[in-house]
Amino acid sequence: MPEIRKDPVFGRWVIVAAERGLRPNDFHPDQGKDGSNCPFCAGREGSTPPTLYSLPGPGGAWRLRVVRNKYPALISGGSPENRREGIYEHMDALGIHEVIIETPEHGLRLEEQPGEAIADVLKTYILRVKEIKKDPGIKYVMIFKNHGRNAGASLLHPHSQLVGLPMSPIRVLQELNGAKQYFFENGSCVFCDIVREESAFEKRIVAQNADFLAITPYASRFSFEMWILPRAHNSHFEDMPEAAAGALAGVLKTVLSKLATSLKDLSYNLIVHTMPVQEPAAENYHWHIEIMPKLSHVAGFEWGTGFYINTISPEAAAEILNSGKSFTL
Amino acid sequence: MPEIRKDPVFGRWVIVAAERGLRPNDFHPDQGKDGSNCPFCAGREGSTPPTLYSLPGPGGAWRLRVVRNKYPALISGGSPENRREGIYEHMDALGIHEVIIETPEHGLRLEEQPGEAIADVLKTYILRVKEIKKDPGIKYVMIFKNHGRNAGASLLHPHSQLVGLPMSPIRVLQELNGAKQYFFENGSCVFCDIVREESAFEKRIVAQNADFLAITPYASRFSFEMWILPRAHNSHFEDMPEAAAGALAGVLKTVLSKLATSLKDLSYNLIVHTMPVQEPAAENYHWHIEIMPKLSHVAGFEWGTGFYINTISPEAAAEILNSGKSFTL
Repeated sequence: MPEIRKDPVFGRWVIVAAERGLRPNDFHPDQGKDGSNCPFCAGREGSTPPTLYSLPGPGGAWRLRVVRNKYPALISGGSPENRREGIYEHMDALGIHEVIIETPEHGLRLEEQPGEAIADVLKTYILRVKEIKKDPGIKYVMIFKNHGRNAGASLLHPHSQLVGLPMSPIRVLQELNGAKQYFFENGSCVFCDIVREESAFEKRIVAQNADFLAITPYASRFSFEMWILPRAHNSHFEDMPEAAAGALAGVLKTVLSKLATSLKDLSYNLIVHTMPVQEPAAENYHWHIEIMPKLSHVAGFEWGTGFYINTISPEAAAEILNSGKSFTL
Repeated sequence: MPEIRKDPVFGRWVIVAAERGLRPNDFHPDQGKDGSNCPFCAGREGSTPPTLYSLPGPGGAWRLRVVRNKYPALISGGSPENRREGIYEHMDALGIHEVIIETPEHGLRLEEQPGEAIADVLKTYILRVKEIKKDPGIKYVMIFKNHGRNAGASLLHPHSQLVGLPMSPIRVLQELNGAKQYFFENGSCVFCDIVREESAFEKRIVAQNADFLAITPYASRFSFEMWILPRAHNSHFEDMPEAAAGALAGVLKTVLSKLATSLKDLSYNLIVHTMPVQEPAAENYHWHIEIMPKLSHVAGFEWGTGFYINTISPEAAAEILNSGKSFTL
């Protein structure tokens, strides 16, 4: 069973999950990328845990499926107890780990699907969060998508992941604290102010519609990093009105298409940043999506300092993405 | 000129350095790995900035050279002023960025050098830190080494880097605060306690001698992560007695050799963790070296949460390293 160990200096948590080392990897030299062994393809439903939720496709087939992760980082059914080993602390890695298989087709990338199908993926995120948060022991639901080898994906077949956690993770708390501090100092939501500032400045906009704005953020850590912000203030992703899913799908399709056009062999992490699920709506936090293309590798300086070095300014990145030109490192 | 931008939510700093995008890259498909264009090889001294320091080799040649980084992340000569752009803040990226070319030989990895030569590299770190800290404007000196493509290295030729910063970076402050908190709660240095605990437990030890202990730490973020700790308490790396450099070189040679034996195509970041250079010796902090092999890619869950998922326990990692067996993912 996976366990969580606490670093005695940093307080940093590490999940030691030996079982995950056994998961299939499309990027391993011994495995094919053609999908001939892919557990997420249509017809291979028996190689995943049972379906938790699905959407029907043509001819009785499914077009989207949600399953438990077969190689979970966190699992239900352990003890919530904190245990000591000498000066160290550890506990069972309690939680929920689900996979959303976005399509039965092995090679159909999210942005290649029609807008309505992308909206269905987003609506499924919302539905699963609402289901998972019924358990009062789950404090945070992390929704993310790893695409491509450099982003840590192990399977090529388009999928997203949901992790329900028994506590709010440190990075989420740091972001909430930063937003709270900004609200305290300025009397306004920092993300609302970013939407206003970027709408006026224009040069970092990559896509927009009446409900959403996609920008290359001012202090982009990664070249071509992108944030998608709802224009209306809302702290919880899962409280997004159902109707807005279509508008978000449209912006997401545009930005992922622009990234795929400009960057060859694109790898990216997509992360939904949202409030802890058991907390009430807040005026100082604003959910949003962060997309981090991985063109280069994080190196010693970044690991040691927590600073990032970005060799392409966000203004240059927006210009390249909007030009439709392809970019080579 | 590179600039530092501050993220308005996190307070996170990002260095936007377009010039660094122009640096040569041995891992680029258009470039050779044979060293035929390598700026760090003997005979190509004209392709780097002038020598700041060197050690003489046989026949009037050099065997170690220190130069300014030609594509620096930080540079001297800008303004220390903080400037506003709407809701955002930025400043010139002030600092020092040096490269230590560890050998004139393109393919001679650090652990393949004799112990005395490794000790010379370490003594050079100390010498340069002592030189750089004479400028009271430099608050922190980050010493690190990126080896291999997955660790973010752009050149194969063995080299280390030193960055002098006008402030202590956030990750350093978090570590110092964690150690301070531990001292407050336990009345002892957390690293001294780790040395004691690990010496007794034995199963995470990879190398040791009278002065240093190398372990796979209890809450390893990365598979085969390793820490080298001096047994004697000392907060500042540069205050290490000259005689200890030989002992440290011995342990470093052993652990890097074990990593290279067990892991094919090894990539790693080596980072010296030490106190801010202008601060006095402290009883609650203890310098050490962290080595982070990069076998897998940091993915969305890690980026979103700040947690790490490690699929090989530190006990299993130590066993593999000490067995001399090679490991395949």
